[in-house]
Amino acid sequence: MEIYLDNAATTPCDAEVARLMSEYYTEEYGNPSSAHAKGFRAEQKLKEATEQIAKTLKCKPKELIFTSGGTESDNMALRGIAHAKQREGKRILISAVEHAAVAQTAAALEEEGYEVIRIPVDGEGVLRTDALKDALTDDVILVSVMAVNNEVGAIQPLREIGALVREYAPKAVFHTDAVQGYGKIPLDLKAAGIDALSVSAHKLHGPKGCGFLYLREGVRIEPLLRGGAQQEGMRPGTMDVPAICGMALAAKKATDLREAETKRLYELRQRFCDSLLSKTEDIRINGPVWMPGEETQRVAPHIISLTVKGVRSEVLLHALEDRDIYVSAGSACATHRVKPSATLSALGLTQEEMSSTVRISMSFHTREEETEQAAQAIAALVPQLRKYRPG
Amino acid sequence: MEIYLDNAATTPCDAEVARLMSEYYTEEYGNPSSAHAKGFRAEQKLKEATEQIAKTLKCKPKELIFTSGGTESDNMALRGIAHAKQREGKRILISAVEHAAVAQTAAALEEEGYEVIRIPVDGEGVLRTDALKDALTDDVILVSVMAVNNEVGAIQPLREIGALVREYAPKAVFHTDAVQGYGKIPLDLKAAGIDALSVSAHKLHGPKGCGFLYLREGVRIEPLLRGGAQQEGMRPGTMDVPAICGMALAAKKATDLREAETKRLYELRQRFCDSLLSKTEDIRINGPVWMPGEETQRVAPHIISLTVKGVRSEVLLHALEDRDIYVSAGSACATHRVKPSATLSALGLTQEEMSSTVRISMSFHTREEETEQAAQAIAALVPQLRKYRPG
Repeated sequence: MEIYLDNAATTPCDAEVARLMSEYYTEEYGNPSSAHAKGFRAEQKLKEATEQIAKTLKCKPKELIFTSGGTESDNMALRGIAHAKQREGKRILISAVEHAAVAQTAAALEEEGYEVIRIPVDGEGVLRTDALKDALTDDVILVSVMAVNNEVGAIQPLREIGALVREYAPKAVFHTDAVQGYGKIPLDLKAAGIDALSVSAHKLHGPKGCGFLYLREGVRIEPLLRGGAQQEGMRPGTMDVPAICGMALAAKKATDLREAETKRLYELRQRFCDSLLSKTEDIRINGPVWMPGEETQRVAPHIISLTVKGVRSEVLLHALEDRDIYVSAGSACATHRVKPSATLSALGLTQEEMSSTVRISMSFHTREEETEQAAQAIAALVPQLRKYRPG
Repeated sequence: MEIYLDNAATTPCDAEVARLMSEYYTEEYGNPSSAHAKGFRAEQKLKEATEQIAKTLKCKPKELIFTSGGTESDNMALRGIAHAKQREGKRILISAVEHAAVAQTAAALEEEGYEVIRIPVDGEGVLRTDALKDALTDDVILVSVMAVNNEVGAIQPLREIGALVREYAPKAVFHTDAVQGYGKIPLDLKAAGIDALSVSAHKLHGPKGCGFLYLREGVRIEPLLRGGAQQEGMRPGTMDVPAICGMALAAKKATDLREAETKRLYELRQRFCDSLLSKTEDIRINGPVWMPGEETQRVAPHIISLTVKGVRSEVLLHALEDRDIYVSAGSACATHRVKPSATLSALGLTQEEMSSTVRISMSFHTREEETEQAAQAIAALVPQLRKYRPG
């Protein structure tokens, strides 16, 4: 039996979501921009889906822009906001542990003449708000800090960041890449003063190729794409109604389940770590630790980063794969690159530690037998694999 | 029974395509960037799909960049090529009848300082190659002319255009928006000297939210999005393997069926027009005419533009809708705008004619009973509706 523990890379689409999409692709396939009843029905479905998603964030439906996924949402936020505000300043702040969709877009803006400051994190991957405070000046136009780090699961202190931004850089727009946070941790847009937030559907049992950008009413943005009049010209192109409706259903399910599932996943996480660490020496969990009973957590429930001393991550990954257990070495988005992880490096890991780090990531579908079996397999494999360590 | 004749706006997804996608969303859901077997299987599926699409265009798999659809493909081509070639020149030529995804992107480039020249069309919507020739100079960096016009179905003389570009603007990249042409008319990349070509899956019974840009090997482009290492960094973001595989199947089916279906649709088209014109006065078919027996056609099989004197298009559209017949007034992408159609205006239609124009568009699913019933319904409705004409 397959044990899939790479849910931070992508999740299986929920069966009900896939059925709904299939129906919309083949039956209710109208183009919502069409002026006839078939288009109107599609427009109605789109409206309902938009309202459903808006409810999960307690925002207005018109504050949502649908995109092709997290990467486009992040690009739209960073470029769109930077370009719209370029007359007010050129300074952009991001964390040192952003996903490539933010980090690389910021780097491209740097080439255009913007100044990008990367705020360091502590040894657990949490943003150093003291460093942020020092960097916040009147001419900062954009602050982008992710909700949950995709490699170690660190939850960023969005409320505190939002408050600092309001106080010390009142002109700045505060964006958060919530691709690993939405549906996984509490997200209160108003309390955190979030102006823009990126989401990807396939990380929460929705379809690939679909996501959205929440953009607070009144925040100006330059569109990334030009074309038809869809989404008030902010994101033209035929609306992918089937995928958006699928995403809305997945989002509703994730939101309804979140509290109970978060509790369950934290406990799975703890048992997994306890089980593994009790049996194996020299394994370190990167990132913050779960604090049972605490209301505010510093780590997301679903991501566990392990540094296994003396075992190269690919070797462990493939040994687990032979047992039908799928985990990740670093994030999927970076797999084909040879560069070391910017996140792990920012946490202060050595080159050797980075190359001995694997990521276990769970989802609402993950069952206790699976994490327990994975812990046992790792505990059994590590001593064997250590025998073959080079040098 | 519903008669859907708005296939240029969007088509129903083929049932087999939808089934395949559903399976990939729920079962073979791996992220092709993941380093384990589940990711590898997804990567294999992606590879097969890419090869399948490459075969339909007789191009190399690595010449395909997957996107979220036609709008993104067009934006990527225009912006990407213009930015990559900005040191060689600033002049861009497009036709006067391009889709908004090209026309608006060109307009945005104009704001950035590029010079955009719009080449006129003749009274049937076919590019005036004499005017193109006059505008082709050494400093033209990009020529973008659509394969098939989305409003009147005019096929643009791509071979002739390609030859002129090679001769008079050798530095220019030749892009064609083939959203209404791919799978509908013969497209020979080499013979026409096409360097870049945009396709959207949902126009040929594939999924919405998916498309591709063919980019000839050696043509440089600046990516539109930044992020992970997917697609060699040219278009980052988790690959939408289910939709790409669905698109590949739809593309294969369309290509396999094209010759037989084209013939069938031309005949349907002709019978529809004959039937309608024999019964009703003062109806004009816009765009070129089908020439039975000719190898080279000037009009695509699936799009028919009708100007019905004295009947406002919305009125006819809604009267047909009451009979479960769905047609379009202008293109879906422009429905919510009040601006008159740039295409119809370029063909020389008056304001009154433009507001009395409807578009009938067929697909491989369209049957003769449907077009015949639509022709009868229009013929029956028009005299009644003309009685109520204002003024």
